[in-house]
This record gives sequence, C-alpha cells and structure tokens, in this order.
Amino acid sequence: MEAFPKPLLDGYKNFMSGRYVEERDRYHQLAEEGQKPETLIIACCDSRAGPELVFNARPGELFVVRNVANMVPPYEPDGQYHGTSAALEFAVEGLKVKNIVVLGHGRCGGINAALSSVSEPLSPGDFIGKWTTLLKPAAEQVNKNSNMTATERQTALERISIRNSMGNLRTFPNVAAAEKQGKLKLYGAWFDISSGELWVMNNKTGDFRRPD
Amino acid sequence: MEAFPKPLLDGYKNFMSGRYVEERDRYHQLAEEGQKPETLIIACCDSRAGPELVFNARPGELFVVRNVANMVPPYEPDGQYHGTSAALEFAVEGLKVKNIVVLGHGRCGGINAALSSVSEPLSPGDFIGKWTTLLKPAAEQVNKNSNMTATERQTALERISIRNSMGNLRTFPNVAAAEKQGKLKLYGAWFDISSGELWVMNNKTGDFRRPD
Amino acid sequence: MEAFPKPLLDGYKNFMSGRYVEERDRYHQLAEEGQKPETLIIACCDSRAGPELVFNARPGELFVVRNVANMVPPYEPDGQYHGTSAALEFAVEGLKVKNIVVLGHGRCGGINAALSSVSEPLSPGDFIGKWTTLLKPAAEQVNKNSNMTATERQTALERISIRNSMGNLRTFPNVAAAEKQGKLKLYGAWFDISSGELWVMNNKTGDFRRPD
Amino acid sequence: MEAFPKPLLDGYKNFMSGRYVEERDRYHQLAEEGQKPETLIIACCDSRAGPELVFNARPGELFVVRNVANMVPPYEPDGQYHGTSAALEFAVEGLKVKNIVVLGHGRCGGINAALSSVSEPLSPGDFIGKWTTLLKPAAEQVNKNSNMTATERQTALERISIRNSMGNLRTFPNVAAAEKQGKLKLYGAWFDISSGELWVMNNKTGDFRRPD
Repeated sequence: MEAFPKPLLDGYKNFMSGRYVEERDRYHQLAEEGQKPETLIIACCDSRAGPELVFNARPGELFVVRNVANMVPPYEPDGQYHGTSAALEFAVEGLKVKNIVVLGHGRCGGINAALSSVSEPLSPGDFIGKWTTLLKPAAEQVNKNSNMTATERQTALERISIRNSMGNLRTFPNVAAAEKQGKLKLYGAWFDISSGELWVMNNKTGDFRRPD
Repeated sequence: MEAFPKPLLDGYKNFMSGRYVEERDRYHQLAEEGQKPETLIIACCDSRAGPELVFNARPGELFVVRNVANMVPPYEPDGQYHGTSAALEFAVEGLKVKNIVVLGHGRCGGINAALSSVSEPLSPGDFIGKWTTLLKPAAEQVNKNSNMTATERQTALERISIRNSMGNLRTFPNVAAAEKQGKLKLYGAWFDISSGELWVMNNKTGDFRRPD
Repeated sequence: MEAFPKPLLDGYKNFMSGRYVEERDRYHQLAEEGQKPETLIIACCDSRAGPELVFNARPGELFVVRNVANMVPPYEPDGQYHGTSAALEFAVEGLKVKNIVVLGHGRCGGINAALSSVSEPLSPGDFIGKWTTLLKPAAEQVNKNSNMTATERQTALERISIRNSMGNLRTFPNVAAAEKQGKLKLYGAWFDISSGELWVMNNKTGDFRRPD
Repeated sequence: MEAFPKPLLDGYKNFMSGRYVEERDRYHQLAEEGQKPETLIIACCDSRAGPELVFNARPGELFVVRNVANMVPPYEPDGQYHGTSAALEFAVEGLKVKNIVVLGHGRCGGINAALSSVSEPLSPGDFIGKWTTLLKPAAEQVNKNSNMTATERQTALERISIRNSMGNLRTFPNVAAAEKQGKLKLYGAWFDISSGELWVMNNKTGDFRRPD
C-alpha cells in the first residue's frame, strides 16, 4: 500500500489494534445512534495543539472546527461560503451542544502573522493576510506597546483573539439567544505548548489562569 | 474551578498526568523549534472522526483543518474571508507540507444535509445550506439515482465530496505547481465510524479500498 | 511589655526560641566577620512578597532594598537624597555583590497606582504620584491597549517595570562597568503571590518564564 | 535553568516545597483579598537584619521599606523622587497601617559610614555620602565624645538614627495627624545581630531595653 503516506498508515494500524479495540462498542454505538457531543471546540490548525489530545477526548465527545488562529468571523448572512459559521450552525442548531470552547494556544503562527507587517504575502491569493484582518485593529494596538517583548505581544494577541472570537460568537443571533436562555455556555482557553498547561478564561474579567 | 466544563477539565488532568508526561520532551522541542508537520489533513468537524485518533498521531504530526464535510472551496482570490484557503496557504507555503489528505467519513451529517432538500434552513443565516452548495450539483445527480438505497447515496456523496475537495485543491495555483514538481502529494481517505476501517483512495481511478 | 505591637513581640519570641537557636553560630559569625552577601535584591514593600521568604534565605544571604514597585531611578548625581542609589552604591562598591536581582510581583499596588489616573493624590505631598512618574510613559502605552484586560495590563506593566529598573541600573557607570567586566550579573524575576511561582526573566529577550 | 543564581533557585525550590505548601491558603487569600498588613517596618538593607526573620513574620504581615540605615528623610513635598516617602504614603493612606516600626540594628555599615570621615566617596556619585548627611550633625556630635569607644559611638548613633527617623516621620502631616487621633502608633527597635536580641524603645524616654 504505497499510495498513502507510511506514517499515517502505521498510525492507523496502531489505532486499529489498540484504541479501536478499546472503543469498539463506543464506535458501534456512535455509528448507530449518531453523534451527541456536548461541546463545540473552535481550535487552531496547529499540529501541536490538537484538542482531542489536550482534553484526552474519546470519540464522540468533541465537535471540532479548526482554522488558522481559532477565529470566528462576525455574523455575515451574505450568501458567501462561511465554513466556520456553517459548523457553528450545525453544532448549535443541529447538535444542540451545551458548550462552545474557543481554544487558543501559545506560539501561534497565525497570531504571529497578524502581528507581522510582512510586505510579501505567502501567495498571490494572500488568504492569510485577509483572514487575519479580523485581528488587525487589535494587532496594531498591541504592536504600539514597544515596552512589551515580542513574546509578550504575541501572548497578549493570542488571548485577545480568543476574546475576539467569543465576542463574534455572540453576534450570531442563535448563539446569543441560547446563551441568554442558559442552554449554551461559552468558554475560552489557552494551551501552552511547551508546558502543556491549559489556562482557562474567567468569563467576567476575560483573564486567563491555570485551574488549580 | 467551576467555570469550565468538568469533562474537559477531567480530560485535561488525565492528559497532564498521562500523555503529556510521555511526550514532555517532544512538546518542549516542538515549542522551541516550531512545528514541522509533514501532512495537512482536511477533515470533518464530526466528533467521531478526529484524525489524531484515526492516525494515532503524536503532537506535531498533523496540521488539521476541520470544517463541515471536509470541504475545500475553489480558489477565490476575492478579498473575502476564506478560512480553509488561509489554512491551505499556511500549510503549503509556510510549513511546506509534503502531503495533503482529505479525510471523509461515513454517516456524515454535512453530506446528509447536502442530500436532503430541507425547506427550512437550520437558522435564518442558512450557513450550512450555503456551505453545502459546493456539493449541490453532485448531490442532485446522486439523488436522481432512485435505485440506490439512502445509505448507498450517502456513501457515494461522501466519496464524491473527497474527490471534489481534491479537485478544488488543484485550482489553487501553488498546490497545482507543487504537485507537478513532486514536492506535494494529494491523498483521499474515508473513515468508517462503525468498523473503524480506513478506506484509501486510488489516485488513478478515484476508487476507495481498504489497505491490506 | 505593652509598648510594642503584640504580634511582633510574639513573632520575635518564636524567632528567639526557634530560628535563632538554629542559626546562632551563623549570627555570631556574621557579627564578627561582617556581612558578605553575594546578592542585592531590589524588591517591593508589599507584605506578600518578601524576598527572604520567596528565596528561603538565611541571614547574611541577601542585601535587600525595598521600595514601592521595586524601582530604580536613573543615575542622578545631583546631590539630592537618593535612598535606592545609596543602597546600590553600598552593595556594588562596598560589598562587591556578584548579583543584582530586581524582584517584581503580581497584584502590585504601586504598579496599579501607575496605571490609574487618579485625580486625587493619596496625600498633598503626592509622593506615590511622583515616584511612579518613573513608569508613566510605559503605563500610558499599556493603557492604550483597550483589548487587554485590566489584569493583563497590570501584569504587562509589572514586567516592564522590572526591565525598566534593570535598564536604569545600567545607567550607573559602576554597575555598567562591573557588568561589562563580568564581575556583576543582573537578573529580573517576578513573583506570583497566588500560586507562589517565580518567573525568571530571560536576559536576551526580556521574557519571563517559570524555571523547570 | 542556568540564567539565575543557583542559591536563589535552590532556595525558591525549598520555599515551594516547604513554606509555600504550609501557607498556600494564606497566599491564595492574600492574592484574592489584597494585603492588609497592620505594620509598616522601616528597616536597613543589611543582609543580617531582615525583619521577616526577626519577627518570624508570615506573608501579609509586614509592609517593609528597606534602605541604608533605616532612615526616613524629612517631609519634602518638592516634586522629586522620594522612595521612602512614597512607601510611607502608601502604607499610611492606602493601607491604613496601625503601626510604624523603625528597626535599626548593630554593626550597621550605613551608620559606620556616617561616623567615618572618609575623604574618598565609594563612587563619584557619592550617594551614600549624601544619604547619610541626614545623620551628619548627630554623627559629628557623637564623634566629639572621645571618651566613648568606637563601638559605643556606633551603637549610640544607631539609636539616635532610629529616634531621628521617628522625628522625621512626625514631620509628615498625615502621620502626625493619625498619631494624634490614636489611629497610628510609632515604635523604635534595635536588633543585636550577634545575640539575636531585640531592644525596644521606650516612647517616653527614648531609651532602648530588652523586653522581658
């Protein structure tokens, strides 16, 4: 079977002989009854910050959107393709999830791109440049802080981006309504790749701290 | 720490005392040196089909985009927000991944939505309706096949959707160029939630079969 | 003995029957031979951040200056009273310390005062207002970051203040010369009152992180 | 973690595994509720006379200013940087401390400097020389006492310095007013480094004696 990357095939064989055996009944049940995840995670594509690992999740637990820098664009019912908004609609209206967690992380390349004023886009389409305009005003504000180190500015914007996404989530009328009715809760969290620590956002203040 | 869903916190504690301990050196290295994943996975948000589980992946191995029905919109350099295209640009131009895998799966709710002609959208924004228009011509064609069962039509569209995304990937000039130069390879795969089996696409014929 | 606060007298009696007994020989030696501390600590007055506790220090180990917000004013040989500069001169020229550590901490009232634009000073002398003008430009910059929470702004300025003090230390010609000759090293650290964690500054980047 | 003095890191680790564990709840509470120390201590930088050790203090008990020879300059609302006066304002007006203790000690290098007529300052800035001019008239008077030994003259000036600082404290209008209203009490004490004894000042006579 050379027509597939070997590391992936090897990993898949380990899955089949290991985790799948443990979870066989669960997979059967999830196939028969459908998925009923209680949580939508909006996470980054970064290979080091996969939410299933961080939350040691079992199959069926997390409905996961992953895009660059875990962003939620504002509500724009304009008839364009909105992948993140479609996933949000599916989770909230279709699956009736109880929780939405925006999961950011340290050393995020998307955040770094938002903070950099690169003259040359990565490709002529400049999709990252456009995607990160969602963060531009905040990035410019952070960049004016010449007394903060580059790493401090990066961490600051990573956390602002989480709060930003949470604010944008609330621009979706159904999210706002469900939250008001107590059917849906919104959370923010930030994962430190190096130490493995999860920092959880305080919903009142917006600050992040490690759970005890 | 009551301000965070208990199952997630419990899972995180298991991660910290288990997997993180095993992978500590790797996390430190990934933090210091940055991520160097060789593979971009375009997968579905479905809670039962997380690629890290299916491929038993270690942190740092897979750069993962997840949206409803693992779709890639066609190349549209129009200045709008394109989350999937931004992630693609990041993976191909920034990280220089060697492989792109489009990973579909059985019993996909997004595919099911594309096949249904629901009169009522899930929300007034109808983001899923719009998102799945990417599959509409194929869905209509499949639906005309009155001799196929509902399950067969579903599986058929799931696989069509993978090939569709692969075709759209090749509308991005940099993807097409890198593939032509042999620097980048494109793969399709389909995960059967019930049996745990991975079906891999034959790049020449487009057919899916289980690896030996 | 009512002419002295009872808690202090009680504490002193505990010292005499406990720690002093353990350290008797050391106190005798320190009295006979004089102090030879290797480290000058510039710390805050805050009752929660005493450096002897944080560093579990024995008598004779730390020469300690404590003022509001652990600040070092710039070199001003102007004939005025400069308490911090006098202590610095004593430590560097008199005691030939090898290390200077600027120790900041979380939830610092002095930093908070620098960030607040209180219309009324605490007293007509407005000594805090004047003292914290040393931080005003940085505080104003931080305050413009409306996307950062109050706590994030506070932490940012706490760390800037440490770097600021370290920069001002280097305006003293003898400090700069001794550092250049390798006789003296400068360090920054930040103490988290709640978690008890010490974050140490990286001298190259200015960033703070927990030692492993 | 080589970028920090090893003795300090070792001490910090002992703190974290020892004292911090005992005081964890207290640190948490002090972080949440803020500091409420009842006592401001004005002490010397000397490494052998740290007030937390002498008074066996717990975190949160003592708000501590430390400068060379535990001095308080007179009230000078002149717009200059006054570190000690800023700390005094913070303690009295901000924290509403009930007690101020000026803590001197034996074998004080700053007192010794005030008694010596050294022709050469320690550095061109001569900050100690200027700082100790606060004690010059008293030092000159003591030095004329040729019948006292050098040690006696030193002890005499150490105690004069404590009374001097207490006198200067009362030049601050808010200190004087709070003392008159019975809201604030001023104390003097002197610590004998060799014997570990605390000598407490009698507020009426100015004499120092050991508590029973």
